Amino acid sequence: MAKEKTHRPKARTPRGFEDRAGEAIARERAMVGAIQTVYERYGFDALATPSFEYADALGKFLPDDDRPNQGVFSLQDDDEQWMSLRYDLTAPLARYVAQNFEALPKPFRRYQVGTVWRNEKPGPGRFREFTQCDADCVGAPGPAADAEMCAMMADALEAAGLAKGEYLVQINSRRALNGVLAAAGLGADDADGAAARLGALRAMDKLDRLGTEGVRLLLGEGRKDPSGDFTPGAGLSAGQIDVVMAAMAALRDTPAATLDALSEVVRGVEVGERGVEELTEMAASLDALGRLEGRCRIDPSIVRGLEYYDGPVFEAGLRGAGEAGEDEDGARFGSVASGGRYDGLVKRFRGAEVPATGMSVGVSRLLAALAAKEGLGAAPAGPIVVLVMDRDRLPAYQAMAAELRAAGLRAEVYLGGSGVRAQMKYADKRGAPVAVIEGEDERARGEVTLKDLILGAEMAASIDDNKTWREDQPAQVAAPRGG
Amino acid sequence: MAKEKTHRPKARTPRGFEDRAGEAIARERAMVGAIQTVYERYGFDALATPSFEYADALGKFLPDDDRPNQGVFSLQDDDEQWMSLRYDLTAPLARYVAQNFEALPKPFRRYQVGTVWRNEKPGPGRFREFTQCDADCVGAPGPAADAEMCAMMADALEAAGLAKGEYLVQINSRRALNGVLAAAGLGADDADGAAARLGALRAMDKLDRLGTEGVRLLLGEGRKDPSGDFTPGAGLSAGQIDVVMAAMAALRDTPAATLDALSEVVRGVEVGERGVEELTEMAASLDALGRLEGRCRIDPSIVRGLEYYDGPVFEAGLRGAGEAGEDEDGARFGSVASGGRYDGLVKRFRGAEVPATGMSVGVSRLLAALAAKEGLGAAPAGPIVVLVMDRDRLPAYQAMAAELRAAGLRAEVYLGGSGVRAQMKYADKRGAPVAVIEGEDERARGEVTLKDLILGAEMAASIDDNKTWREDQPAQVAAPRGG
Repeated sequence: MAKEKTHRPKARTPRGFEDRAGEAIARERAMVGAIQTVYERYGFDALATPSFEYADALGKFLPDDDRPNQGVFSLQDDDEQWMSLRYDLTAPLARYVAQNFEALPKPFRRYQVGTVWRNEKPGPGRFREFTQCDADCVGAPGPAADAEMCAMMADALEAAGLAKGEYLVQINSRRALNGVLAAAGLGADDADGAAARLGALRAMDKLDRLGTEGVRLLLGEGRKDPSGDFTPGAGLSAGQIDVVMAAMAALRDTPAATLDALSEVVRGVEVGERGVEELTEMAASLDALGRLEGRCRIDPSIVRGLEYYDGPVFEAGLRGAGEAGEDEDGARFGSVASGGRYDGLVKRFRGAEVPATGMSVGVSRLLAALAAKEGLGAAPAGPIVVLVMDRDRLPAYQAMAAELRAAGLRAEVYLGGSGVRAQMKYADKRGAPVAVIEGEDERARGEVTLKDLILGAEMAASIDDNKTWREDQPAQVAAPRGG
Repeated sequence: MAKEKTHRPKARTPRGFEDRAGEAIARERAMVGAIQTVYERYGFDALATPSFEYADALGKFLPDDDRPNQGVFSLQDDDEQWMSLRYDLTAPLARYVAQNFEALPKPFRRYQVGTVWRNEKPGPGRFREFTQCDADCVGAPGPAADAEMCAMMADALEAAGLAKGEYLVQINSRRALNGVLAAAGLGADDADGAAARLGALRAMDKLDRLGTEGVRLLLGEGRKDPSGDFTPGAGLSAGQIDVVMAAMAALRDTPAATLDALSEVVRGVEVGERGVEELTEMAASLDALGRLEGRCRIDPSIVRGLEYYDGPVFEAGLRGAGEAGEDEDGARFGSVASGGRYDGLVKRFRGAEVPATGMSVGVSRLLAALAAKEGLGAAPAGPIVVLVMDRDRLPAYQAMAAELRAAGLRAEVYLGGSGVRAQMKYADKRGAPVAVIEGEDERARGEVTLKDLILGAEMAASIDDNKTWREDQPAQVAAPRGG
């Protein structure tokens, strides 16, 4: 700082990262606080893991002589070990559970709120760091635990500001999906079978974007999109496609009717029947929890990505988001929370499976979805600004601000070096509701002038006659100076 | 997750990083919330900058072919630019102010709470990531702004749980120090002069650890410590040392008397007189703010490190921390907050100086200092645990937990796979205040048994006769099952 440099760096945020201020911070803070309260109410305890994990613990196997930049931010510590910034809160949970397995109560219920980093190409609205808000229950084997996750997801969304009816938690079972594929003859337990199933799931996962006909084409010979690009299909026969589409269309008016329709499709296929059974148990638990009707729905068309889930899967979308291909309720778009069962969580570390289920709220997406709503986590209003009319009396003006703060108000003295006109501009820019003015005249009378800047701005917009404005000064009052 | 690997990674936190749970998280959250409220009350607005900054913006000039690991964690982005995790919140503020200079109100008052990272050798209690809680006022030239920082520091510490009298904000001026050194003949404006001043400041900064005699030795010929290690001295003459030590001992009973004593030392030295003047103005402002007496003290012996400060400097220590070398009030040790003026903040980016003053609370240190205090940010009590006596009735037990939650209580159903004995152990481990038991008998009577686990644990410790305990069951009651 002592020496002047000829080269001045350009002040800029790194690509894909953003500064946030006032309102955005206040809204995220309020939302995260509300969700935490729900998690705690359900018996989950807070955990904070470090930003960094050893790369091998994250499951990326890295050569020593190459910087691994596939999806994660990594660097080599001075003892040669590779460390990576966490890309989600699940991998650190797996490491933590494995590290502390004996000491933890089982089931282990933890929630974590934290920043995660993704080393991806940034784009408009796509950032490389964002906040996640996860809850997981490790060591809970049954569908009752998955149902609780769905109920808590509904409560979390309502605490965050969504009303019942504005969102829907959609539930399916990966086992039910595998049963459907087996019923369609895609059950072969070899590499070809796995590839065929993956292709079919990929096609099914596009129902919300492409609709029934689009999925039929992708399950079969392939599909040409409006631009002319051709996506090869999964190569299923017409009969196989009928079986899959019967499951995709199994949604009925009641959970029981839906489960009956799904049962028809997977009858005699063991994994499929197990899937229907776990969905039946989840519906019973959700009903008992009072979170089924109008909040959660068993929907056999939900695929929920191709991640590590191996039992129930669930995701919450906003209703009526309104894009092409949505179902009758408009409930498919804008997933704002998701989760599922992943019994393989700590297997990498411990060898054995540990049953686990969990969920995550996408805080940034949910904030965007709620952007139009008022009242949630407003930033504090601008401070009252005490103007400095006489620089020699600065301590006295500071004492006024201290009095206002002691009364519970936000208040500050103007601490810059400019005159009264610039001070008024400053107070406006700060969103100050009131400017406090004590000049020589006011002091002689033992008064201060309170200038209502909000009212003043409104009136200034409606009063054309500058002279009238100056003479009347309707937005300011004199007040006696209290002790 | 699909394939079993023969190599299992060891689950471990990276060196110098830690997991935190329950109580530690709750206490930090409560403390940060209390401090934020103070900052907002003073008119500061929240800002959140990214974890990463471009390395050149942080002020480290980095060769392209070498990973820079001096103090910061850095990595190269895929467009070849080096990025570093922020090591404090001041450098990102400088970048932000430079980037948005025209649009910001001046003075610009922002606070920021966030994680910072230090790439240093970890040690016991020394972590490589921790939380800082900063407030800065950019564009405020006068000592009134520095005084406000000290007042706000006092308020923040009291909001965090320290009482008046348990801490002290000590204040000095870098200009006053330079005046003292000039008065001692160390004022030469060349490299030799700068080196001599730095050596003297280093010696003076050790007053709290070494006491007056130790500092005299370090100012002069050097000092041998009890282990026999010799530290070379700054080489001042006896007369020069007397001048410096007169300033170091200028603390008096009142700020006015202290400033008089300091004036004596720097009389006729312009920079020193300016320093005394700014300290005089700060005292006047602090008095007007009601934060001088018992909270803040002008102390000419404070050096406050050798950082970038160029005007007033201040730091808050805990009183009565009790180590060798402390002054009569025991006020020197365990700095928990600090700050100062650094008009060069955005000079690297903009060329011109912008007056700025700021402060930072060391959240982790303050938490450690307050560890003994009760009541601040306790983790939520353990949840009520509903036991599963009959697995087929799991949804009914879940409904009970939902009822308890609807009444505002923390409650969960046991979701593991074990029997009643293990469930009781689980409830104990969770710190559950009460276990809810509804077996076949209770259900027949329309009752539940509430087992008071806290009372139960206390009584179990005092009752020897196991039979008496079982028959009386003093810590459990039957309660009618409500609707």
